[in-house]
Amino acid sequence: MKLIRFGSIGAEKPGVQLDNGTRLDVSEFVPEYNEDFFGGDGIEKLAEWLERNERNCPVISNDVRLGSPLVRPSKIVCVGLNYAKHAAESGMAIPKEPVLFFKSTSAIVGPNDDVIIPKNSEKTDWEVELAVVIGKKASYVEEKNALDHVAGYVLHNDYSERAFQIEKEGQWCKGKGCDTFAPIGPFIATADEIKNPNDLDLWLKLNGETLQDSNTSDFIFNVQEVVSYISQYMTLLPGDIISTGTPSGVGLGFNPPKYIKEGDVVELGIEGLGSSKQHVKAYK
Amino acid sequence: MKLIRFGSIGAEKPGVQLDNGTRLDVSEFVPEYNEDFFGGDGIEKLAEWLERNERNCPVISNDVRLGSPLVRPSKIVCVGLNYAKHAAESGMAIPKEPVLFFKSTSAIVGPNDDVIIPKNSEKTDWEVELAVVIGKKASYVEEKNALDHVAGYVLHNDYSERAFQIEKEGQWCKGKGCDTFAPIGPFIATADEIKNPNDLDLWLKLNGETLQDSNTSDFIFNVQEVVSYISQYMTLLPGDIISTGTPSGVGLGFNPPKYIKEGDVVELGIEGLGSSKQHVKAYK
Repeated sequence: MKLIRFGSIGAEKPGVQLDNGTRLDVSEFVPEYNEDFFGGDGIEKLAEWLERNERNCPVISNDVRLGSPLVRPSKIVCVGLNYAKHAAESGMAIPKEPVLFFKSTSAIVGPNDDVIIPKNSEKTDWEVELAVVIGKKASYVEEKNALDHVAGYVLHNDYSERAFQIEKEGQWCKGKGCDTFAPIGPFIATADEIKNPNDLDLWLKLNGETLQDSNTSDFIFNVQEVVSYISQYMTLLPGDIISTGTPSGVGLGFNPPKYIKEGDVVELGIEGLGSSKQHVKAYK
Repeated sequence: MKLIRFGSIGAEKPGVQLDNGTRLDVSEFVPEYNEDFFGGDGIEKLAEWLERNERNCPVISNDVRLGSPLVRPSKIVCVGLNYAKHAAESGMAIPKEPVLFFKSTSAIVGPNDDVIIPKNSEKTDWEVELAVVIGKKASYVEEKNALDHVAGYVLHNDYSERAFQIEKEGQWCKGKGCDTFAPIGPFIATADEIKNPNDLDLWLKLNGETLQDSNTSDFIFNVQEVVSYISQYMTLLPGDIISTGTPSGVGLGFNPPKYIKEGDVVELGIEGLGSSKQHVKAYK
């Protein structure tokens, strides 16, 4: 099943996208894709309900805006430097254990919403990432059971302001939490749709030119390892997002570096998870 | 006004604490102390309602558990090394601009709930901190207007596992986001109650011995500067928490370092914001 949220900003409703691309409004059955939904066997219940009620669901026009396919979670935990070539292009060592950081949940926007370059930014960069949506509370989970805690997978562009992230004092959050820096979607593919999350092609284009083109089989730490690892430090709640890191090809890695500017178009996608497109605007 | 939430974990209701210590249930008027409440002039509306209805509010027994006085916010932004002596005891330079990090909101617990030492932890440490609750969306706010965006102030113990935070690879979040590591409360004092947030005594005792004893006038960056600074990097939403850093006297700073163990009792307080007490338990 593919979960979407549609409608204007702040007034999104839950829906599903069928394999033929048709989008259905399921808000009659599901109030929201949130912690209660994911933690309360919502996916199974929705699938059962849909079997009986699909033909009665209102069809959504394909030109309606998509929002993030889940409401604001308790946290976005990101894995840094999780592809060897990206660690190298960033001038950093290959980590011996997962490098973690938080991204602010107020950065979440819809998959095709504009990305806004912050004031005083000169180094806003892209990062196509496979994001994992937690389905069941995860605390001290073993690797062999880790995928039991996953509800599904979703495409994420982990926008990053490199000067704010790296050149400012302190931790990375200044360059990771800016508004609009987390376009999520188009849809959450429920876990049953993704045969192996550790073998998915992913790509990103800037103004039509392919700059990232890799496969999650290049992960240093795979999805099971990452879910288990994070759960040793904090409880992952249903609906929480883990973003698993980006492959090489970010702007920082070019010589000279490339950063986005007003008018640019960023497109990205992951096998089985669709694609998204952001137009770049400057803060005004 | 002093805002509290009371009741069992996950079933807290909003209340107020009067100056004479009496606690009143205001859930008839306010559904929750959340983003909608703080962003929708909830404090002013509640104060008006209370004037007319105080005598009809149910009184809460003083032995009822207190929860965090606000529901899970979109983010907790923390300021690191914001007192000069604490930077020195941590072996770090005095920052030239605020050092920021995020604490996971899933770490929030009530002010007097047990703190749980995580599995494999040997270095769980305390940090008494003044926390600021945002009342009005703050984006690119100037210092001179920053306090207009503050709803109130609250006591926070920013528990930190030093090995997870500093000795593990990557960012600080592994040692800052553990479950129960953010006891918040007893109450939010609305901004009108705190004459000057940059001149408040704060203290912490471990098993009755005073280990932190300072005043927020020792801030490197005061509340106005911190709110304005963070708002240059991300929008602060109503109900978001900024924790302003801890003074010297944390366990890490002792020679040899002191860390908490099962059975310890941690008490802390801030002038005008009451006190809290956590019993230390080990994860089982």
